[in-house]
Amino acid sequence: MRRRLLPLALSLLLANAAHADEGMWMPSQLPGIAQQMKAAGFKGNPRELSELARAPMNAIVKVGGASGAFVSDQGLVLTNHHVAFGVIQYNSKPGRDLIRDGYIAADRSAELPANPDYRVLVTTGFDRVTDRILADAKGKRGRAYYDAVDGATKAVVAECEREAGYRCSVANMYYGTDFYLVRQLELRDVRLVYAPPNAIGNYGGEVDNFMWPRHAGDFTLLRAYVGKDGKPADYSPDNVPFVPPSHLQVSTQDFREGDYAMLAGYPGVTFRHRMASEFANQVEWQLPSRVALYHRMIDTIEGTAAKDEAARVAYASQLRSLKNSLKRAQGELDGLRRSDAVRVRREDEQAMYAWLDQQPDAATTRADISAAQAVLDRATAVRERDQLLGAIVAQTQLLKSAVTLQRLAHERSRPDAERERGYQQRDETLIAGQLRQVQRRYAPHVEKALLAELVGQYQALPAPQHVAEFDAVFGAASQLQQKLDALYAGTKLDAESERLNAMQADRATLAASGDTLLQAAATLLPAILRLEDENKASSGELLRLRPAYMRALIGFRKSQGRAVYPDANSTLRVSYGRVSALDPRDGVHYTPLTTVQGIVEKHTGTDPFDAPQTLRDAIAKSDFGNTAEPSLGTQTVDFLTNLDTTGGNSGSAVMDARGRLIGLNFDSNWEAVSASWMFDPRYKRAIHVDLRYLRWLLAKVYPAPHLLKEMNLPAE
Amino acid sequence: MRRRLLPLALSLLLANAAHADEGMWMPSQLPGIAQQMKAAGFKGNPRELSELARAPMNAIVKVGGASGAFVSDQGLVLTNHHVAFGVIQYNSKPGRDLIRDGYIAADRSAELPANPDYRVLVTTGFDRVTDRILADAKGKRGRAYYDAVDGATKAVVAECEREAGYRCSVANMYYGTDFYLVRQLELRDVRLVYAPPNAIGNYGGEVDNFMWPRHAGDFTLLRAYVGKDGKPADYSPDNVPFVPPSHLQVSTQDFREGDYAMLAGYPGVTFRHRMASEFANQVEWQLPSRVALYHRMIDTIEGTAAKDEAARVAYASQLRSLKNSLKRAQGELDGLRRSDAVRVRREDEQAMYAWLDQQPDAATTRADISAAQAVLDRATAVRERDQLLGAIVAQTQLLKSAVTLQRLAHERSRPDAERERGYQQRDETLIAGQLRQVQRRYAPHVEKALLAELVGQYQALPAPQHVAEFDAVFGAASQLQQKLDALYAGTKLDAESERLNAMQADRATLAASGDTLLQAAATLLPAILRLEDENKASSGELLRLRPAYMRALIGFRKSQGRAVYPDANSTLRVSYGRVSALDPRDGVHYTPLTTVQGIVEKHTGTDPFDAPQTLRDAIAKSDFGNTAEPSLGTQTVDFLTNLDTTGGNSGSAVMDARGRLIGLNFDSNWEAVSASWMFDPRYKRAIHVDLRYLRWLLAKVYPAPHLLKEMNLPAE
Repeated sequence: MRRRLLPLALSLLLANAAHADEGMWMPSQLPGIAQQMKAAGFKGNPRELSELARAPMNAIVKVGGASGAFVSDQGLVLTNHHVAFGVIQYNSKPGRDLIRDGYIAADRSAELPANPDYRVLVTTGFDRVTDRILADAKGKRGRAYYDAVDGATKAVVAECEREAGYRCSVANMYYGTDFYLVRQLELRDVRLVYAPPNAIGNYGGEVDNFMWPRHAGDFTLLRAYVGKDGKPADYSPDNVPFVPPSHLQVSTQDFREGDYAMLAGYPGVTFRHRMASEFANQVEWQLPSRVALYHRMIDTIEGTAAKDEAARVAYASQLRSLKNSLKRAQGELDGLRRSDAVRVRREDEQAMYAWLDQQPDAATTRADISAAQAVLDRATAVRERDQLLGAIVAQTQLLKSAVTLQRLAHERSRPDAERERGYQQRDETLIAGQLRQVQRRYAPHVEKALLAELVGQYQALPAPQHVAEFDAVFGAASQLQQKLDALYAGTKLDAESERLNAMQADRATLAASGDTLLQAAATLLPAILRLEDENKASSGELLRLRPAYMRALIGFRKSQGRAVYPDANSTLRVSYGRVSALDPRDGVHYTPLTTVQGIVEKHTGTDPFDAPQTLRDAIAKSDFGNTAEPSLGTQTVDFLTNLDTTGGNSGSAVMDARGRLIGLNFDSNWEAVSASWMFDPRYKRAIHVDLRYLRWLLAKVYPAPHLLKEMNLPAE
Repeated sequence: MRRRLLPLALSLLLANAAHADEGMWMPSQLPGIAQQMKAAGFKGNPRELSELARAPMNAIVKVGGASGAFVSDQGLVLTNHHVAFGVIQYNSKPGRDLIRDGYIAADRSAELPANPDYRVLVTTGFDRVTDRILADAKGKRGRAYYDAVDGATKAVVAECEREAGYRCSVANMYYGTDFYLVRQLELRDVRLVYAPPNAIGNYGGEVDNFMWPRHAGDFTLLRAYVGKDGKPADYSPDNVPFVPPSHLQVSTQDFREGDYAMLAGYPGVTFRHRMASEFANQVEWQLPSRVALYHRMIDTIEGTAAKDEAARVAYASQLRSLKNSLKRAQGELDGLRRSDAVRVRREDEQAMYAWLDQQPDAATTRADISAAQAVLDRATAVRERDQLLGAIVAQTQLLKSAVTLQRLAHERSRPDAERERGYQQRDETLIAGQLRQVQRRYAPHVEKALLAELVGQYQALPAPQHVAEFDAVFGAASQLQQKLDALYAGTKLDAESERLNAMQADRATLAASGDTLLQAAATLLPAILRLEDENKASSGELLRLRPAYMRALIGFRKSQGRAVYPDANSTLRVSYGRVSALDPRDGVHYTPLTTVQGIVEKHTGTDPFDAPQTLRDAIAKSDFGNTAEPSLGTQTVDFLTNLDTTGGNSGSAVMDARGRLIGLNFDSNWEAVSASWMFDPRYKRAIHVDLRYLRWLLAKVYPAPHLLKEMNLPAE
């Protein structure tokens, strides 16, 4: 049992100094931190992990938008049940409920094709293209800088994708400092091989989401297929299993608390290297004001819909979503406050400036950072407005529909390739679906009450935050109710047919429409486009200026003997650490390995705690054999590490000190919800399926001896 | 950290075999278990603890209906903040909010008198009176046996109370096997000396109730006063502090996980030695059917009141109470199932019978036990009816008022001393208050819906469970709605003045009343009285027959080398064990000591987690000195032991191996809610204030150096 031996303030300082386990490293950085990895217990050579397009890193794949890994030389892919959920759902039909029952393909011919848009991506190239991306941007500023980078990126990607079967992208590292071209083989024929019942794969469901201790068997096995020529192909019964460039071996060794572990996957986005002022803005304004805004919107919707059964039903989904966002924002705020993130980041930045001021390029670097800060300050000056205008469009149904319709007509006046993302031809089915859905999610008095609240707040902002077009539509505060009444009395957009008809109308027809909401949207659209343009100009400036900050940070860290990983950007990263308990709060100690006894304890017989009888019988038999953890004398289920992860790391391979696969990442703990901004080693943990549980299920509960054999694993 | 080293089934068996820490022992039993106590770590002589009316046991007092202890030679009493809450409330007034602010009497003259009915009871005698109590009962059965015991009890008590200043009672040990006369000095002048702010004394409030980890400073110091003659007296400024026969010394030693601990107090009621059939009835019928009934009542009230704001307000309190009862019943049920209580008790009983059948008196004992079982079976045959009829009266407002009014009129026709408890002259103020309160808790359509549900269920019972008078009032199922409509249309009891007037009416007037509900109550009353009589007859039989079962159990336990404590009955008991962690479920380990860091972690600034600034400043200063626990390097707050407790143990003194006072019991953990039936050593824990926290608060946060000095404690 770990005890709190130090006063809080001191332990905080020490905790923040203990960066050993923080880091989402690019594989190429690993040789540079070889000493730390070995000190942590790694038994291999970090150089062997350093190339994305070589073994074993090219066994780590992107799958269904998240992570996975090849686990056999016949294209078998291990990923999360929740990552493969769409595939399982796609193959379920009346009389064959694969979600409920799970699925075991008896042989290759029984493997079920995934939905056609499901992909497995194998990295085959990772090359620095910074010079090409920035060549045309040099000397430019703002929007021009943004457009130059955007244009070069599109050109590089188009060139790379000329070869059929590849998907390419450009990854921005260190906020515009470096750019890498990522080349990936795009496997389009993916099939379902083995899925446990949902009551195992998603045991605990929403109740346990983000929680530890956890007892989910969140894994599924898929297989990637290619044409007979070995090249990516659409599904065909003639296709053959893809022979991956490499695959990982599932471990047959035991592991326990304190053992070395490392993880490879595709973390989505983090903000760890943002400037101290951005930390302060996030903790002191963004999150608290978002929490307050969510509260007000929830109160408004609940208050208005209270006496109206139909409205309560219509807004149930939006309310659930708002409450979920509120919970997340509050959790992130609590976490960042608990970690004293603003103070810690500010002191760290001040130390960096003290170091920087001793360097020869201090003046020019400082000038760029000041300019970047000025861009941020301009955004801060209108943050209340931006938050409210965003909500006015995003949180309404009919007004949002009107704006979408005007925007679509506007975009359609340009060639498809030049339209804004989300308004291209391929997006129109989605837009039509959203317009249809309004019918089930709208009640006029609720939308008016929500707008009265949001616009009312906007109207109370000082003049410099006002936008003429919004003022024109909503008038002054004293007129607001009258304006809203008129807007919703004079619109026919509450009829589905009207919305879908308007989607077909051209720009001139829509502009001439006498519909009050369409008129309002026509007035608002130029403002919305203008604000978007301003935003792109700011983004361009930050893309130009942030590298100065990052170079200073990297130099400062080097002076501390520390390397800097780039903030997460959906590229392959490796983190290392150990199997770790968690002391989430005073008096509570979470052990890092859960066992099947916890499944029985949680079982209530109703979803999400409805463990299948087959599983409960097997647990009762206690026939665990060599998949049990000897120190616990029973079968483990999930485990906890201090590995550095974020959204996107679902399905990431967790390996032991010798690179053997021991776990599959699927979640992180509630206390770590703030880790996208700050890694606090006291609270940051990642939650994994223990692959000994997978081995036991495949050997003794829902047997698949052929798959164990394929993975070179013992039959029991 | 404790690990689960054994398969579940085996650990269950072992756990149930490990009875070392179970037991609410009568002090007189302690010499008999001296070996076990010493093995557990006790350093004193159990014989010194064996007499209730001698030191140190006579320092353990009853206070405010719960437990407490003298902690100075000047009558200072330590008990829980929640036990003294009424005293604190009584002394609060506009401008002096002692609940919020706490209170420190600067000197004796500033000590504030408690409400006049508040008592401290000091045990001065504990004598076996079995022969006297049972003398007249011998040879009798049923109601006659009951009346004989009741009569002898009243006589013994009356004789004992002849001396002024004493309160006496007869305690029934081992279900009618033994009777003890308890004689207690009744101190009537009790004063408030020191109370922490409510935000300390009740930190965590309802949210943390039953929960661990806990961070409440749930203690208060009172002082008992007597007249100048040393005898109990009503409050007078001339009174002097009571010099107790003995007092406990608060410890200045450290303690930690695993250390010996023991507790003395007045546990209320347990059912540990009930028969296996009663365990089965509780787990298989009583609790599940109670849970189902609560659910239905809650659904009915919520459904009926949903669209009626006034009704929602009126029923908020009843709903809260039903939900609380539901939670408790579900918790007890879950716990008893988790402990496999029915099977464990049944197997234990079968082993007892196997032993019994080898004994010379097997036949007569078996006959008595069979007869007791027959009494229980008769109750089981009508358990559905009894549950429903109970709810029909208890869960209604207007119908209950009508029954109460008829019952009061009926009881008033007898001499006051012979009236049923609850209907004597001294109870009439309370009854009037309840009749008044109906106004704020009643809506006719909700009460009718509730009755439709409850009576509907009753009507669906088989004929043998029917009661003619209830059938007469409510008719057949097809008539129910009509009958209810008529009952509530023809009553004026919804007017407060009508109810209070009816309270003054004599029996004849009430009997002749044309009020439909009063008429219904007049019809029901004879049935209610008859069922009560039957119940007393059953109680008498069980009182006569259960001793056979208890003697068999005691003999069987003796053959196993184990002693048997009597089930709790509000008499002084001692339990021993150790400072113990808790593993409440897979993956979760609770440490047994909480610290002030937990107060900071839980602090939200709003009730019930609104730690006073003074406290938070003191925590931030980390100036804990010798009240800190060295192994943790910080100030402890509460701690957990495996001591055997139940309701009534609030304020019990927790002592170390040398009898020094280290803690004050104030709650138990949620997992232990089923402990009134079964002590499961895996889950049963008791929650105590760590008196080092008290010492720190008195020394450094809300200083009271004069009290530390009086308790012979260091000033810091």
